[in-house]
Amino acid sequence: MNTSGNKISLTTFGESHGVAVGGVIDGFPAGVSLDFDMVDSALRRRSGRDLATASQRAKAEQDEVQWLSGIMDGVSLGSPIAFMVANTAHRSADYEALRDVYRPGHADEAYMLKYGIRDHRGGGRASARTTLPYVVAAALVQQLPMMRDISIDAYLVEVGGREFSDNGELVDFLRGVQAEGDSVGGIVECVIRGLPAGVGEPLDDKLQARLAQAMMSIPAAKGFEYGTGFEAARMRGSICNKQRDGIAGGISTGDDITMRVAFKPTPSIIIPQKAKKRMPDGSVSEVDLSVGGRHDVCAALRAPVIVEAMATLVIANLIG
Amino acid sequence: MNTSGNKISLTTFGESHGVAVGGVIDGFPAGVSLDFDMVDSALRRRSGRDLATASQRAKAEQDEVQWLSGIMDGVSLGSPIAFMVANTAHRSADYEALRDVYRPGHADEAYMLKYGIRDHRGGGRASARTTLPYVVAAALVQQLPMMRDISIDAYLVEVGGREFSDNGELVDFLRGVQAEGDSVGGIVECVIRGLPAGVGEPLDDKLQARLAQAMMSIPAAKGFEYGTGFEAARMRGSICNKQRDGIAGGISTGDDITMRVAFKPTPSIIIPQKAKKRMPDGSVSEVDLSVGGRHDVCAALRAPVIVEAMATLVIANLIG
Amino acid sequence: MNTSGNKISLTTFGESHGVAVGGVIDGFPAGVSLDFDMVDSALRRRSGRDLATASQRAKAEQDEVQWLSGIMDGVSLGSPIAFMVANTAHRSADYEALRDVYRPGHADEAYMLKYGIRDHRGGGRASARTTLPYVVAAALVQQLPMMRDISIDAYLVEVGGREFSDNGELVDFLRGVQAEGDSVGGIVECVIRGLPAGVGEPLDDKLQARLAQAMMSIPAAKGFEYGTGFEAARMRGSICNKQRDGIAGGISTGDDITMRVAFKPTPSIIIPQKAKKRMPDGSVSEVDLSVGGRHDVCAALRAPVIVEAMATLVIANLIG
Amino acid sequence: MNTSGNKISLTTFGESHGVAVGGVIDGFPAGVSLDFDMVDSALRRRSGRDLATASQRAKAEQDEVQWLSGIMDGVSLGSPIAFMVANTAHRSADYEALRDVYRPGHADEAYMLKYGIRDHRGGGRASARTTLPYVVAAALVQQLPMMRDISIDAYLVEVGGREFSDNGELVDFLRGVQAEGDSVGGIVECVIRGLPAGVGEPLDDKLQARLAQAMMSIPAAKGFEYGTGFEAARMRGSICNKQRDGIAGGISTGDDITMRVAFKPTPSIIIPQKAKKRMPDGSVSEVDLSVGGRHDVCAALRAPVIVEAMATLVIANLIG
Repeated sequence: MNTSGNKISLTTFGESHGVAVGGVIDGFPAGVSLDFDMVDSALRRRSGRDLATASQRAKAEQDEVQWLSGIMDGVSLGSPIAFMVANTAHRSADYEALRDVYRPGHADEAYMLKYGIRDHRGGGRASARTTLPYVVAAALVQQLPMMRDISIDAYLVEVGGREFSDNGELVDFLRGVQAEGDSVGGIVECVIRGLPAGVGEPLDDKLQARLAQAMMSIPAAKGFEYGTGFEAARMRGSICNKQRDGIAGGISTGDDITMRVAFKPTPSIIIPQKAKKRMPDGSVSEVDLSVGGRHDVCAALRAPVIVEAMATLVIANLIG
Repeated sequence: MNTSGNKISLTTFGESHGVAVGGVIDGFPAGVSLDFDMVDSALRRRSGRDLATASQRAKAEQDEVQWLSGIMDGVSLGSPIAFMVANTAHRSADYEALRDVYRPGHADEAYMLKYGIRDHRGGGRASARTTLPYVVAAALVQQLPMMRDISIDAYLVEVGGREFSDNGELVDFLRGVQAEGDSVGGIVECVIRGLPAGVGEPLDDKLQARLAQAMMSIPAAKGFEYGTGFEAARMRGSICNKQRDGIAGGISTGDDITMRVAFKPTPSIIIPQKAKKRMPDGSVSEVDLSVGGRHDVCAALRAPVIVEAMATLVIANLIG
Repeated sequence: MNTSGNKISLTTFGESHGVAVGGVIDGFPAGVSLDFDMVDSALRRRSGRDLATASQRAKAEQDEVQWLSGIMDGVSLGSPIAFMVANTAHRSADYEALRDVYRPGHADEAYMLKYGIRDHRGGGRASARTTLPYVVAAALVQQLPMMRDISIDAYLVEVGGREFSDNGELVDFLRGVQAEGDSVGGIVECVIRGLPAGVGEPLDDKLQARLAQAMMSIPAAKGFEYGTGFEAARMRGSICNKQRDGIAGGISTGDDITMRVAFKPTPSIIIPQKAKKRMPDGSVSEVDLSVGGRHDVCAALRAPVIVEAMATLVIANLIG
Repeated sequence: MNTSGNKISLTTFGESHGVAVGGVIDGFPAGVSLDFDMVDSALRRRSGRDLATASQRAKAEQDEVQWLSGIMDGVSLGSPIAFMVANTAHRSADYEALRDVYRPGHADEAYMLKYGIRDHRGGGRASARTTLPYVVAAALVQQLPMMRDISIDAYLVEVGGREFSDNGELVDFLRGVQAEGDSVGGIVECVIRGLPAGVGEPLDDKLQARLAQAMMSIPAAKGFEYGTGFEAARMRGSICNKQRDGIAGGISTGDDITMRVAFKPTPSIIIPQKAKKRMPDGSVSEVDLSVGGRHDVCAALRAPVIVEAMATLVIANLIG
């Protein structure tokens, strides 16, 4: 289903190349004066427009939020806050040639197997564009009084298996990858500071479990760890016990929490690949595929704001 | 909260040294003839009695399930299946000295901060004993017709940072760790075979997200990855696209799914540690602590059957 | 919260005089060719435009649905179906005088007490306009194959305490009430035919309990009964046992189910009333109030299509 | 499913003649000192032992609660509170003759149609004995600080269509019904006092909708109304607006709330009835049935404590 959260829930909708993507935030308290610039700022980070990188996709997206309900004179009413962002950058024609092709590394075939129908126009519901409503919702949720003293900061720590000391070096690296027609993955780290002790539940709503679920919901995420993470499996107890990972028994301790999420490379690449194609008679044959169009060389570049949004929504639903 | 699953849900209860641990399985279909030997077998694996290792804890646990409802003449009725396992191995006196001590690496302090009260007798709700009901429930759920062709197998791939080619070598290693009064962690791998395509939902109930949540709910779990996992972040797209990880867009593809879960070392160690102690006047002072009693040298040894149980319950709730 | 249903859920949003009302239908199966005329037809019934009565409100509402997601070329995609209906009939100025008045029989004061803020423009979230998304959703849901053989028909059986043999008589009666500046209530009966046996759950999701909840969610509903209803309390067991009410133990039996819902009179009346008014200093004083504007003389007239919609959504969530 | 409530949830289990009935209360706050006499007192009211009536069933039930978890030294731990009550009054042999008979007015046939199997021993999950866990849970929940100033009182206002001015008259009436081998229904009224304003949600969790759902979940309930109820449908708006029903727009106003629930007569009667019987070859034939054994003449007599329990649980889940 498409609803997450049970206190401040978010129901999302929209395919990448349909009319709009959007969401409904339910349980948002009444009487909060909202700063919409924070929403715009988050969307700009998500769009990649601020990245000094060779993102072809970035300039196409100029997302404007339409607020449909739940707000009067800039103040929340306590009723559901619905919003939408029109998909203005329709270039569905780009995708017509892909109508029956299952792009490698994409969900095209899985959707077809599950639904017997799919929106072939740019990934439909599987597109990373569906992360947009989470970013919008989180930009409001972080304005709640209970969230004010909590900071959630995510950043790239690794791209294509390498760490970069400055942005210029990173841009050079990405241009090289792009010139090869290939793509790379990356690792995003996120630090949560100021979270009070006592957040999270002992068994099924452990804080780390909810964070893991949220992070692994982001398209292209392949792994999650927090605190000592995978390295803990190689430590002695006498050493590991000295670490303060910020969570114990599923419950926050008041210490900082650090987590890391691994993202695979963008699957859309120019390098020719073999792909499955469903033929008119229902059979599947193999075709050569080179994916043109606007595609990021490294989807992880735009992931930090999404990681922050997901963490924000998890925390808001476990607090209070 | 203590309920997981929305189709075949499991509500668990019980502290490690209270009257009993148990659960209520809701949504279990009617008319299924149940093999209770499968439950006993799973509990024996969980107890570690079959491990040829120096687990002191193992022999103490002889868990017997009492079935309270939902079954008549060995056949499920369609009503909630409630069960309990008495905590016969009460040795609460062992814990009396720990009443006000916060053991390092345990949830003692976090519970106190959250609830203002805690069951100090052996970890209470934070104890690994609370995983028992999941193992019982999964042993029934895997008998459902819809689960028959799906195999879920978990096993240790790493203990204390090392791989072991035979069991004897592992036992020697663990005896060494035990002799030092220390403990080690480990990594469990789990392969899901025979899962039909189409299981999982696009956004908030992605198969990998639900699996991650379930795995990160197991006590001592610190990291999760599936398929290419963290390694994917270091691959090129042209290489990564060739992998079949068994999940695309959150939906199973029909291919095998491999995941790995990292467990930290057992926090209860004999080596003396510094611990916090809450004093009668409410202040907290530091004391020296050496945790005696029955404790595993490596909790990960008993984790595979729990990993399998968690995966079984996730899948049963996403199928059909 | 504003979500109902756990299989085919509906999340609604919108205040009566905000930008729009709408909803998100989640869990709607893929591959269903949708007939949008059925939606328009249901909305027309809801608007009262087809009633030969003196509804002033009716002509103002010409609701047009905008489909935002989940449908491609008229076929459902399996993703959330979001839709909205703009509130074109904005006459918020009508309500400016009511900004601080709590209209008798309305939820104005309750909202203020709960939220500390309210949308005074025509009832906001408490307006009957918020039933519109349920009618839209039900008009799609009834097109699902599993609903095809089930008929759900609601109709007025009593208006203002009287039964009417023909429509003309009813119109005359309502004109009389209107001339007095007053309003009347009514009773809606609904018959569910063709529902297969086995729908509903034994304890917390009894079919009659879910129906009661849904019906009592409709604005102005004050009572619910099904089958022998309140009359059963006056029967002998030997007589009552012979009735087939269509539900036993919370589960449908395959027989027809009849239910009745009582609606109070429209609270907005022209006859002068005493009302509370919140004064600038926070105190509350009493004022004389005569509610002008477009108001139904009998809100129950438009209720049958809403009763049908609610019942449709309940049943779709308990079947299959 | 068998869980109700999302803040303080109750999951129930047990068939009337199985091992036990019981429940798991989740979300119960930590640190509450519990008075278990209140539980015993509520169970005694439920058993009918205090009624000066000719209830044959009453003396058989001496229910003793076993607390399985969530409580230490009489104080709640914040973890799930599980409890069970053994079904000591097993007289399953009474029911052996009914193995294949569908008793009129009971859920026997509906269960068989739904599950293809049923517990024929005394109604199984459809028995009124399944209301016991709600009574236990409510007796704890009403001890929460947030519930202290709220009083919820239910009482019989009508039995067999008659009002009774004194208990002796009622007993005489019931003896007469019993002598005829018949049974009667009744109407229970419940008044909620002291509920603060603001409880309930605007759309899907309207206070009256949740109350209606809970009341209609009680076995034998056929109708629900609150405040002016069905009578409102016969009032003029100018009159109805003057009533204060305690709920407006789904939200409590701080005024008292009165509701009424109609119960049908106990279906088990001695007067011979025609009943369906499933024959060994699967066909259904008609047999003569006279239901002996311990049965109440009027199930509604024991309903008030159940009505109070249901209302208590609803309110605790909507407050705070």
